[in-house]
Amino acid sequence: MYQYVHGGDIYSAKKLINSGEILDFSANINPLGLPPAVKDAVIHQLDECTGYPDPFCRELVTVLAEYENTQEEHILCGNGASDIIFRLVLALRPKKALLLAPTFADYEKALNTVHCEINYYNLKAQNDFSVQHDFLDQITAELDMVFICNPNNPTGQLCTNPFLKKVFDKCLETDTIVLVDECFMDFVDDPENYSAQSYLCKYSNLLILKAFTKIFAMPGIRLGYVLTSNPTILDQTRLAGQDWSVSLVAQAAGKAALTQIEYLEKTKLLIRAERKFLIKELSQLGFKVFGSKANYVFFESAKYLDLHQRLLGKGILIRSCSNYVNLKSGYFRIAVKNHEDNCKLIATIKDVII
Amino acid sequence: MYQYVHGGDIYSAKKLINSGEILDFSANINPLGLPPAVKDAVIHQLDECTGYPDPFCRELVTVLAEYENTQEEHILCGNGASDIIFRLVLALRPKKALLLAPTFADYEKALNTVHCEINYYNLKAQNDFSVQHDFLDQITAELDMVFICNPNNPTGQLCTNPFLKKVFDKCLETDTIVLVDECFMDFVDDPENYSAQSYLCKYSNLLILKAFTKIFAMPGIRLGYVLTSNPTILDQTRLAGQDWSVSLVAQAAGKAALTQIEYLEKTKLLIRAERKFLIKELSQLGFKVFGSKANYVFFESAKYLDLHQRLLGKGILIRSCSNYVNLKSGYFRIAVKNHEDNCKLIATIKDVII
Repeated sequence: MYQYVHGGDIYSAKKLINSGEILDFSANINPLGLPPAVKDAVIHQLDECTGYPDPFCRELVTVLAEYENTQEEHILCGNGASDIIFRLVLALRPKKALLLAPTFADYEKALNTVHCEINYYNLKAQNDFSVQHDFLDQITAELDMVFICNPNNPTGQLCTNPFLKKVFDKCLETDTIVLVDECFMDFVDDPENYSAQSYLCKYSNLLILKAFTKIFAMPGIRLGYVLTSNPTILDQTRLAGQDWSVSLVAQAAGKAALTQIEYLEKTKLLIRAERKFLIKELSQLGFKVFGSKANYVFFESAKYLDLHQRLLGKGILIRSCSNYVNLKSGYFRIAVKNHEDNCKLIATIKDVII
Repeated sequence: MYQYVHGGDIYSAKKLINSGEILDFSANINPLGLPPAVKDAVIHQLDECTGYPDPFCRELVTVLAEYENTQEEHILCGNGASDIIFRLVLALRPKKALLLAPTFADYEKALNTVHCEINYYNLKAQNDFSVQHDFLDQITAELDMVFICNPNNPTGQLCTNPFLKKVFDKCLETDTIVLVDECFMDFVDDPENYSAQSYLCKYSNLLILKAFTKIFAMPGIRLGYVLTSNPTILDQTRLAGQDWSVSLVAQAAGKAALTQIEYLEKTKLLIRAERKFLIKELSQLGFKVFGSKANYVFFESAKYLDLHQRLLGKGILIRSCSNYVNLKSGYFRIAVKNHEDNCKLIATIKDVII
């Protein structure tokens, strides 16, 4: 039976509290909002929408290759990162896969469509939910695919790139494909220590997933992409879905977004400061904060297991993480938003836990 | 190896002829263009695109149910009709399917993703490529799914609804699911004689596919939907892909499009007159025109097998149908556009066949 399991469903939340106003901390979107240049580019493109989108996203891929410092042949765009996940899984048809637990829910949803058996690497609270060296032990010959969300969602914990190299080497031995999901990497302070990007050309079993969704605040427009130096996988993935998955609107938005260098710099500064603020405030309120190296903060509220319900009553939506594999109730994820919104959240939390 | 097989690829065509201007007759889009109300609705929605789309497309589904005179529970929206085709096939995993030949290429592409065996019902030139009564003989117990494109693409031939009823009844006996693709039905003069819509509630094995793409001239925005009274199939199809396949932009565009009643009436009149004009002109030039009951004209050019190449040299893109199953070269499909463009096409054809 279908059930929606993610954050960001302000539509249901509005119905629940019977109010038009929701402050959404459940989806992790750049608080700077849609860059005006992106909005302008979309408006400018609308008259062209009477034509089909370019199935190869040629203009977008050209600028993306430059932005990612890679080759055009290594890029495939999709209707958001989730579209790519489903297509990749359908193309590769893994029989057995290894996931972190907890992690982003769509890997498992996608794997279910091809009846893939799933092994979990259970992240532990005593390790602050970070991946340990014993992860390598779970990479065995019968494993077809490994998913590493880096930074992990919902924990915000990172794997370093020397550690990832060990994973890639082991996976080469076991003939296993590795998908590293870097959709939140652009919010990390020092991505050069964590991103798998420098390994792209060296490992034909490596896929790196990225999205415009979070960093350019455009989840409503849908645009993601995968990077790999493996042409066979890209070709198979193209075949595993429609030709026009990326709308003309998304292609125009993407091209404009990649020019927004100043916006990206501002984002980094804002997220760094506000993440620090939220972590400090939550810690002072007695919550235990873990990881949280991206634009969201993951914490345990052992005392108030219904914190999300208390906040929803005040019009604030946060992500209860109790439906993640290997998490019990009492774990929550909040987005890092702008200072005003973050202050409102902290004040409201104080209010509801008195 | 991936290859793009459809019409509408003006991007490759532009490269081929090294020119910025292409008159595209290869994609069958409403020549009235994007309704201004749709454009306004999208622009108005852009600021909301910092949030995820409603995964259930609730507001759109409400107006769509009224427009289609059906229940909200019978509707699932997708990122264009092609997205729905791939999801449905992944959800239903047919082992054996029956297709018309020739027909829209994405049924076969989607069926290939689940390694489905494909049987063809070969349409014959001597029957004007229309489906005959012997189609029913090919519906047997081992068949899991039947695809009927109505009007068929590229032939523009129709099945009547009494005939469809026989198909549905036979398919009930054989436990076979029928997908009727009505993406071009809104361009037909008397759809009440052909649409399967009145059977929707009576047949739990019936799926009707529709799209905003063609009738509202918005292929660049991506919006399609499927209608069925079978809740299990809808649920399985939801599970067979991401939650956010329909962008906020598409949801806003769809809601606005459905208010455009006058636009739809104008469309019918224009298409009727211009289709008649094109059929008459092509026949007078010695081409054999078949079917062509929708907003495209299907014809044989036995004498000029390279007609599409001759026209491309003049900046006009038409659809060579030689890559359809069961069609040899010399068959072409052109869109019905506005009178000025249609005259330009006819004049250019005259020019290139001298």
